[in-house]
Parts: sequence; C-alpha cells; structure tokens
Amino acid sequence: MSTYRAIQVTGARNFSLVERELVEPGRGQVRIRVEACGVCHSDAVGVEGMRPDPSAPVVPGHEIVGVIDAVGEGIEDWRAGDRVGVGYLAGYCGTCERCRRGDFVTCSRQPAMGSDLDGGYAESVIALASGLVRVPDGLSAIEAAPLLCAGLTTFMGLRLVDAAPGRLVAVQGIGGLGHLAVQYAARQGYRVAAIARGAGKAELALRLGADHYIDSASEDPGEALQALGGAAAVIATASNAPSMSPLIAGLSPRGRLVVLGVDVQDPIAVDTVTLTFGGREVIGSITGKPVDNEDNLAFALHRDVRPMVEVMPLADAPKAYEHMMSGNARFRVVLDTTA
Amino acid sequence: MSTYRAIQVTGARNFSLVERELVEPGRGQVRIRVEACGVCHSDAVGVEGMRPDPSAPVVPGHEIVGVIDAVGEGIEDWRAGDRVGVGYLAGYCGTCERCRRGDFVTCSRQPAMGSDLDGGYAESVIALASGLVRVPDGLSAIEAAPLLCAGLTTFMGLRLVDAAPGRLVAVQGIGGLGHLAVQYAARQGYRVAAIARGAGKAELALRLGADHYIDSASEDPGEALQALGGAAAVIATASNAPSMSPLIAGLSPRGRLVVLGVDVQDPIAVDTVTLTFGGREVIGSITGKPVDNEDNLAFALHRDVRPMVEVMPLADAPKAYEHMMSGNARFRVVLDTTA
Amino acid sequence: MSTYRAIQVTGARNFSLVERELVEPGRGQVRIRVEACGVCHSDAVGVEGMRPDPSAPVVPGHEIVGVIDAVGEGIEDWRAGDRVGVGYLAGYCGTCERCRRGDFVTCSRQPAMGSDLDGGYAESVIALASGLVRVPDGLSAIEAAPLLCAGLTTFMGLRLVDAAPGRLVAVQGIGGLGHLAVQYAARQGYRVAAIARGAGKAELALRLGADHYIDSASEDPGEALQALGGAAAVIATASNAPSMSPLIAGLSPRGRLVVLGVDVQDPIAVDTVTLTFGGREVIGSITGKPVDNEDNLAFALHRDVRPMVEVMPLADAPKAYEHMMSGNARFRVVLDTTA
Amino acid sequence: MSTYRAIQVTGARNFSLVERELVEPGRGQVRIRVEACGVCHSDAVGVEGMRPDPSAPVVPGHEIVGVIDAVGEGIEDWRAGDRVGVGYLAGYCGTCERCRRGDFVTCSRQPAMGSDLDGGYAESVIALASGLVRVPDGLSAIEAAPLLCAGLTTFMGLRLVDAAPGRLVAVQGIGGLGHLAVQYAARQGYRVAAIARGAGKAELALRLGADHYIDSASEDPGEALQALGGAAAVIATASNAPSMSPLIAGLSPRGRLVVLGVDVQDPIAVDTVTLTFGGREVIGSITGKPVDNEDNLAFALHRDVRPMVEVMPLADAPKAYEHMMSGNARFRVVLDTTA
Repeated sequence: MSTYRAIQVTGARNFSLVERELVEPGRGQVRIRVEACGVCHSDAVGVEGMRPDPSAPVVPGHEIVGVIDAVGEGIEDWRAGDRVGVGYLAGYCGTCERCRRGDFVTCSRQPAMGSDLDGGYAESVIALASGLVRVPDGLSAIEAAPLLCAGLTTFMGLRLVDAAPGRLVAVQGIGGLGHLAVQYAARQGYRVAAIARGAGKAELALRLGADHYIDSASEDPGEALQALGGAAAVIATASNAPSMSPLIAGLSPRGRLVVLGVDVQDPIAVDTVTLTFGGREVIGSITGKPVDNEDNLAFALHRDVRPMVEVMPLADAPKAYEHMMSGNARFRVVLDTTA
Repeated sequence: MSTYRAIQVTGARNFSLVERELVEPGRGQVRIRVEACGVCHSDAVGVEGMRPDPSAPVVPGHEIVGVIDAVGEGIEDWRAGDRVGVGYLAGYCGTCERCRRGDFVTCSRQPAMGSDLDGGYAESVIALASGLVRVPDGLSAIEAAPLLCAGLTTFMGLRLVDAAPGRLVAVQGIGGLGHLAVQYAARQGYRVAAIARGAGKAELALRLGADHYIDSASEDPGEALQALGGAAAVIATASNAPSMSPLIAGLSPRGRLVVLGVDVQDPIAVDTVTLTFGGREVIGSITGKPVDNEDNLAFALHRDVRPMVEVMPLADAPKAYEHMMSGNARFRVVLDTTA
Repeated sequence: MSTYRAIQVTGARNFSLVERELVEPGRGQVRIRVEACGVCHSDAVGVEGMRPDPSAPVVPGHEIVGVIDAVGEGIEDWRAGDRVGVGYLAGYCGTCERCRRGDFVTCSRQPAMGSDLDGGYAESVIALASGLVRVPDGLSAIEAAPLLCAGLTTFMGLRLVDAAPGRLVAVQGIGGLGHLAVQYAARQGYRVAAIARGAGKAELALRLGADHYIDSASEDPGEALQALGGAAAVIATASNAPSMSPLIAGLSPRGRLVVLGVDVQDPIAVDTVTLTFGGREVIGSITGKPVDNEDNLAFALHRDVRPMVEVMPLADAPKAYEHMMSGNARFRVVLDTTA
Repeated sequence: MSTYRAIQVTGARNFSLVERELVEPGRGQVRIRVEACGVCHSDAVGVEGMRPDPSAPVVPGHEIVGVIDAVGEGIEDWRAGDRVGVGYLAGYCGTCERCRRGDFVTCSRQPAMGSDLDGGYAESVIALASGLVRVPDGLSAIEAAPLLCAGLTTFMGLRLVDAAPGRLVAVQGIGGLGHLAVQYAARQGYRVAAIARGAGKAELALRLGADHYIDSASEDPGEALQALGGAAAVIATASNAPSMSPLIAGLSPRGRLVVLGVDVQDPIAVDTVTLTFGGREVIGSITGKPVDNEDNLAFALHRDVRPMVEVMPLADAPKAYEHMMSGNARFRVVLDTTA
C-alpha cells in the first residue's frame, strides 16, 4: 500500500475522509500501521479548532494501537513488526529540566497528537519513538486502545493512593474513566465505593467490582463516605470542580483527593479547616510515561481488567466523536481502522 | 461455664489437656471465648521450652479468633459480644519510644502470647485490649485465624513493595506464608512468580494466582527472574538465609528483597556490587499493628483471599503441632476450640 | 508551696490573676512546675470564650515548659525532676482508630489545653503523660516554649516537602510561624524564598537564612517563584486562604503547597488545570506527635535554630495576649512564669 | 589553541603527558575546556588496566569542571560559554528500559569516562550532553570538581535517609566521601555521629559538623550507636563490607544502612533476626542523575558545604593518583588543568 485513509479535521468539527500518500518516518520516528484508535474527550482540542492554525487540517486520535512498519534514523530499540501503542503523551524531548528529572509527563516540549501532530483516526500514523508503548499479545487492539489513555490516567491516579489494600477508595463518576477506575481499584485490593448521580449505575458499578454505591443525587457523598468509615482516597473523574469540593469531607484523616477531571471554568473550593486538622491532601494527576503504560497493560492483562467499548469503523469517526461527546457512550468508543 | 479446657505445656513439648477456672480480665484486658486458634511455627518458643522458666505451664497459640465475654477496667472501645482476634503482636505498652512513634510492632515491652502470656490453645483466653483486632462477619473463625498471623506477615511484607501493579513480584517458598503471599500479591495487582524447590508445587502456585513458576532445584532463581525481566520485589518466606542471597541478583534495579523468614543460624550474604550499582534493597519485616490486621482482613474478605487449612479439634493440639512442625501441613493447621 | 498563681479567663477576655490550691495528678497525669509558657494565636479558642461553657474559668496556654514535680498512677516513663514540655497536642487516647494507626495527631478524643483543660499561664499545671515532650538542657525554657507549638507546626510542614536539599522552598508569611519556617528550611538544606507583604521584612528574612525575598504587595508571588525556577514547595503560614490560591502557580511540576494557616471563612480556590497538568499538590498539616516534638527540639538544639521572642512576666498575660493578637509581636510572646 | 595537553594511560599505571589535536564534538556531544578534574578512587578502572583493551591509551578522570567551547549536532539546551561539569555518570542512552523509567543512573548502556571514553585529566574533553551538569558561579572549579562525584554519592545516599531532622545519622569512614557526608548530614538537619578507626579524626569530625565521634578501634560501633539512642541511618563509605555488618545492630528500628562503599571481595553478612524484628533495611546507592547533581551543587553553594582538597598541576597527575590511592590525601585531590 502506498496510500492510506485518514479522517482529517479543518476548522471546527469539519471532518473529511481523505486518501493520503504514505510518508517515511524521520529521525527518532516510526510509522505505525494502525489497527484501532480510541475516541477520547481530549480529541476536542484538535476537533473543535483550538489549535494555533485551525485552517490547517489535522488527524485526531491519541489512543492508538498498531504495528510498526517503518523505522526512522537513530532508533535502536524498536523494529518493524513490533506491536505498539501511543497514548496521551505523544513523546518527550528528553533534555528539558523535567525530562532530566525523569518526569517525562511534564516535559515542557511535548507535542500533542491530534493537534500538533497527526493522530490515529487513520490507517497509518507517524509516531515519536519516545512515546511508544509495547502492547502485549494477550490484549486485542480494540481492548488496548482505551487502556492507553483512559486506563493509564486511572492507573496513575491510583498510584497516588498511599493506603493499604482493604481500605476504602472511592471513585467519583462512572463513565469513561470511572468504569475503569472501579475495576482497577478493586483489582489492586481496595474496598471500593462508586459515586455517581442517580441509581441507574448502581448495578453496573457493583458488577465492575465496587463494594458500595453512593447516589450523589440523593445523599451528600462526603457524609456517605464518612458513614462507610471515611475514604483513604477519592479518585475524582468528573470534569466539574465544584462537585469535588464536598468530597474532601468524605476523606478519612490523611486521605487524598486525587483529581483527574479537568475543569477549565471553576476551581475546587478547599476548606482549610478540613484540610489542616485532618492532614488531608488534594493532588492532581494527568497521565503517565510510556513505560508506566506498559505496567498498566501488564496489570490489565494479568489481573483481568477490560474496558467496555463501542466499536465503529474508521469512516464513522464523525459519528463516533459526536456519540462520545454526547456522554451516552458505554463507555469508550473505539475506531476499528481496519474496517 | 465456670471452667474451660486448655492445652498447656510444661518443659519441652510436654502437653496436657487441663480444666481451668475462668478468670476475670484485669485493667486493660478482655476475656475471649475462643472459637479457633491457628498453629504457627512461632509457637515453638513456648512449646520447646525456650522461656525464662520452662517448668511453669503455658498455653501456646497466637492466631486466636473468638468473642469477647468479659471486659476489664479502663476499656472504652470494646464490649462483650464483639467478634475479635489476636495475632502475633499480643499488645503494646503505648508509652515506650517506639510506641510514641506509632510503631507498635517494635514496642520494647511487648509480651508474647504462648510464652509470656497464656495463648489460644484453649476455650478461653485473657487478651490485652491493645492487641485486639476486629474480625468481620464474612470470615469464619477457621479462615480468619491463620490470616491474623501468617496472613498479616505477608500483607505487611507486600506493603514494602514500592512498585506499580503489573510489575513482577516473586514469592520464595510456597508454604504457610508463601501460599498466602501468592494470593495476596495477585489480588493486589502484581504479576507473580512463585519460587519453590521441585516441580511439585507448580500447579498449585498457578491455581493460587501465580503467573510463573520457578523450580529452584533445577534453575538458579536469580537468573530465572532476570529471564522474566527482573523482579521489582521478592518476598522471601523460607527460614533459610543462605537461600535468599542469590535472590538479590534476580531483582531489577531499585528492586527490594523483603525478608520475612527468620534464620537464627546463618546470615544473608549481600554482595555490595549488586546492591549499590542497581540501587537494590534488603528489608526486614515481621508483623503489623492490630489496625493493619483489620485492613488485612478487609482485604481478604472483599478481594477473596482464603488460607488453605487443615482443621483439628482442640484435644488434638499436640498432634497438630507435630504435623505443623513436620512441614507436611497443607498449609496451615487450625484448632477448632469448639470441638 | 501549696498554692500557685494562675491567670484564668471567664467569658471572653475576662482575665484574672488567682491563687489556687495545688492539686495532685490523677491516673495517667503528671504535675508540672511551669517555667515558661508561650502565647499563641490558638489561645483565642479559650480566651475569646469559644468553649462549651464560657462562664467556667479556664487557664489558657499550650506552649508549656517546666519540671515534673508529681506523678500520677499508672506512669512508668516519667519521673519527678524530668524537664518536659507540652505543645498543641495535649494528649491522646491511644485507643481510637486514629491512635491505633499511630496517627495521634488526629486522635478523635484529644483534649485542648486552655479550653478543655487548664493550661500553662500559671506556675503549675496538670498534664497528660501522653502529651509530654522531653526538653533537652541545651534549650532555655523561654526558647523552647514557642518551639513546642509554632516550631513543631513548621517542622511537620517541612516534613511534607518531598524535595532534594538545594531545591527552592518558599515560606509565605514572616510572622510567628514564618520566621521559624525560614530558619528551619535553610537548616534543612533548602534554598529558601521568603514571601511577605511590603519590603520591610526583607532584611530580616535574609538574616534568618532566606536566599530570596518576594514582596507580594508589589509582585505576583506565583510569577516571582517561577522566575526563580519554580518552588518545590511553598509553606503557607498566613491564616488567609485566598492569599494561598495564587501560590499554586508558583510551584514547579510535582510541587506541594503545604497549608499551615487555618482560615475559618474562605476556602482556597484550586485551579484544576494547574493542579493536574503539573501533578501539583495541596496538603494540610496541623501539628505533630510529642515524639516528633522531641525530634524538633533536637534539630533546633543541634542545628542552631532559635525563636525570636518578647518575654513578659506571668502577671502581664493579658497584655501579652493583646500584643500577640495585634500582630506586632516580634515574633513570639513568652510568659516567664517564674517572674 | 588547536592542540591540548592530556595525561593518558596505557596498560597499568603507565602514564604519559601527551599533546593531542583538538577534536570536534559529534552528535549529542559538546567539547569542554577543562579547568579542574578531581582524582577519584574509581579512576582505578582505567588506570590499572581493567579495560577491554588495556593497550589502547585512555585519559582518566570523571570529576570534570570547565566551560563548553564547541557544541555538536542535535543539541538545543547547551551553548558555548556554559559553565558545566561531568560526574561519574558520563551520560545515558535515554531509550533503554531503565532510562524510560527515568532512572538514568541504572542506564544499561552508560559509558564510563576514563575507561570507555577519554576523561578529564586534560585541558579538553569531549562529553555527552546527557551527562552535563550546570555549575553555578559561586563555586570555584577546584571546589566543584569533587562535589560532582564524591559529593553526589553522599548526597544521594542521604536522600535515602527517611528520618526527621534532629534524628541521629551516622557516617562510617571519614575520608573522601565521609568528610563530605558529615557536612551534608549536618547541613540537612541531622544529629551526626562520625565513626572512624582511631581517635585521630575526632577533632576534625566535630569541626565538620559531627555531634558525636565513635572510635571503632576501641568500641563496637553498633553498641556505641545504641548508647546514643540508635541511628535512624548509617551512611557506610568504607569499601569494606565486613566492617558494615556490625553497623546494622546500631540502627534503631526501621533504621537504614545506606551502602555507598563497594567491596569486590566480601559480602555484608546480614543477620535476619536483627533485620526482621526491627524492620531494618540495607540499601545500596551509587550516584545520581545530572539534574540531581545540580540540586547537590545548589545545596553545597547555598548551605555552605565545601570539600577539603589538595591541588596539583595537571602534569603531576601520576603523583596525584598515587597520593589518592595511598589513603593519605586530606581528603580529595584535584588537578588544576590550567596550571
């Protein structure tokens, strides 16, 4: 094949299916034959035109799984035929102060796939070697794609829970992140409380591994958590900061509110009495390194965690994006780029 | 009932079944109607006569589950009817330097049940309130007893593993501790390698949750671990220090050898080249606090960990002890003190 | 002596100097012949009448240094003649869930000296043995008193700074806590930036050990910290939560805002973009355990940290309290109870 | 200048002063005009002929300070005129599993200066950009050189001490590493005990900041540490593993033996009773990342730590090496490559 199909966006939500010429990877890059690409809320940055030059077309997508089919100059550790993925962190420079600290996630020169670089809503993609993740054979491309971003976000958030297995960890929000967070927390040994609005998700939450369900529409979640003994941590996945403020009161002393949801409008209001007298903490987390993602996939594979997904063919990407944005997807949408 | 049956020891292994008068608990003590008591290798301290005055009779046993039936003076937090247990840490003073640091496990005045104090090979026992553990209803007395000591030892050892879920954790020894450690490590999200002598325990180890089995009789365990990518931690349960030395070479850089097995004869030989160039660690751990034990039981209950036990009636305690010491038990022996 | 002088308060700020009969310590208590007592902002709880029954007289004061002259029942570790202190944590129960975790600071039954119990504005005080701190001979009573509360608060806040020596730590507020925090941070190896309103405290801050001074009246402290490379931590001592919000933007990625100041009116507004993308943290801290206080005093003694104090005789306690509340004290007021 | 002087070694200890042509740095490299280079015990690897091909000449030296005078391809963050240093970690690949974890110190492809690459016993050296350290103006080249390797080793060892300031930290060995470790530990707030053979170094140790001195020739160091209350950590700098074994008994519970000294002959004998019952730890450490070295230099600069050095001109390198190996240097030998 010398051309490949891609879904590109111009302006805001102006999608088109195009045929492009295959390109060769440059220094430090590889080319991936894409098998699946997840549709993620962060795709909005590119799709809604929040880029320096929205008139330039870009291919969205940063939950990519596929096989390397060409390798650029200066690469020792990756070969054609390797099964790989790319998540939210497309790559890192390796030389800025943060990278020199080994904290690649906060690299000051990291590009974003789907806005700075073309992403994975396509049959082929050029990726930075520094962003590559080895994908084990035991996971299908469709399963692995959402784990690379939604899963990793959850996985890294739980790494910030400094509590013994058996202790209570709450997950706020049962959606794209939360339905994974419940599984991850249970498979890591915690007693799990799921928090969502309405009784509708109770049964699902328990099936995913939750031990308790709190309906935040009918009870104060902070009080409900205290009635369960107080949470050692709450993983907050809703992109709504005001909804996080009352969760702090549900933490046991020394408990941690781990903030994964980003709210560009409102702040979290943190009461200093609750914070200081209980030695409580509010911690942000965004994603992990590529090697963290390999730990994440190994965990999911060996300890039996899987995302719930809706699969659509590549050509339906516009519909897939709308469906994801509607909040009605159960729970991640994945493009099958081979269909 | 105004009397109770107990198995007491005089001298070394001189067991007798006696009928004793019930006694009232003193200040800071409770009396427990015992339902089950595990038989543990550490019982040897009392049973083999390694006490200040071996001629004085003592009742062995420190894996005790039962129900409080009398409460002494100065106790606010425990009541008759509470379902409780006692593990290896019989209690602590609360006022020595270590207790003031909150590290009750290293209390410099801690008594030992079964040598300093009468233990649980009996229908009734006097226990220190500081040593009490709440036992949830979801665990039977028989199941809970070995979790209180063997389980907790394992649980605390795994708390020293500072590695992401998905990474490789090895368990050396598949016996009383190790068969629990494999379950615990898997239920906490690790990829697990079990290490034992001979191929005989391979199938069992995989059934308990191990992903890999290493026969240390036919291959060097350090090399075998490196072939799997290196272990982030090895939990060493064999009471044989020389067998631990080669495990250090199986650790990945920054990996930890967590030493649970005590060897009163030989030391671990630690090579400084392997230790320093890889930033490796050798860490000892012995048991946990009563409140850690509550986390441990909550974990076992909610995440489905159970010991493999052989149950015998109280009167068979001498036989039970011999069986445990023979190394042939599969894997913990528990006395049913109600039988 | 069979009587002692004390300053007691009835209602709000209704001080009187009284002569009381010496009392004998009860179980778990000691009596201290007081040598000095610091005057602390938290004394306001008792002094301003924020107690269950403000008509009952109470003696304020929880920064107490003196010598034990009588010991109650059940005490093994303290003797008449021991030089001791008491700080903000008057004692702890030892049996609640938090105490069983070894986290005595969050004991759910802790009494407060100066509101629940009579405190140290007196020649004699009854103290709980669990709250006692050994005071080394190298520190005078006047020096040690403020270290026991203001110093410990600072010391524990700095324990939450998980950064290498040499990295930038900022101290917001150069007052009772802050003038100690600057010294503590410098003597623990950090590069230190002091933040205060106006240029007036610049020279003092540098003399105490600061390497940089930021005038928050003339520049945005978050931007000023970023101009210095970003702070690994900010120790916020001002009892004004809104003033803390902009500090978060001054943290380097993974940096921590350590909140020591309590604001009963307004919350900290925490921006989730800054928090999540940089993996930043907001952590509360209130005080430490008595044994932490012994580490604190050893540190101050051996590494040459001293509070700046104004000393007044016991009888001037009302004036001392007013002076402290005025914010004009430089920087802690201490009652010499022997004068 | 188009040529530069260098001291090269052929075979074992076969030194010669040569004039070489200046070379241009390749991709990812810079050229440094050397101002000073420390003489370190690890130089022995190259000097004593422990290299793949000892007949090929090599320039020793990895404690290098100078100024960049040429920059190779692919480098964004360094410029001619930058004042820089290189320590033990000459550079790292950035792509192996350890580098992807951010743990560059254990990079599996790291070269060694002075054996794999030419080092700093010269007026000019080619260095890998990944190994570069920014050197602040406040430190002279002579002062900074030993801090880059001996200092960093010490600094990273102390990062493994998880204990409150004020607690007792012991330094075993008062030599090239130890005389820095005493200063570092004191300037980081610890109470410090120095341990060395004989009374000769007592006065010096106290002058450097130690609070206690233990003569290991006349008393058992483990017992002596327990007499001081037990050490929260011991920093072991002697390249003699058997001398470390008794130090473990000097640790307080949860204490850590931090092993910096490498012994290629004998192991440390670790007693499992002491290790497990006290929850003690034995941890190895070798060096730090370049960015850690920048923290290290900032700490030394701002908190006033300086090495004790003997300075010799470049041409005296053979004599300098002999002097260092004799153990008589006080305490680091530095070549002034401008003389």
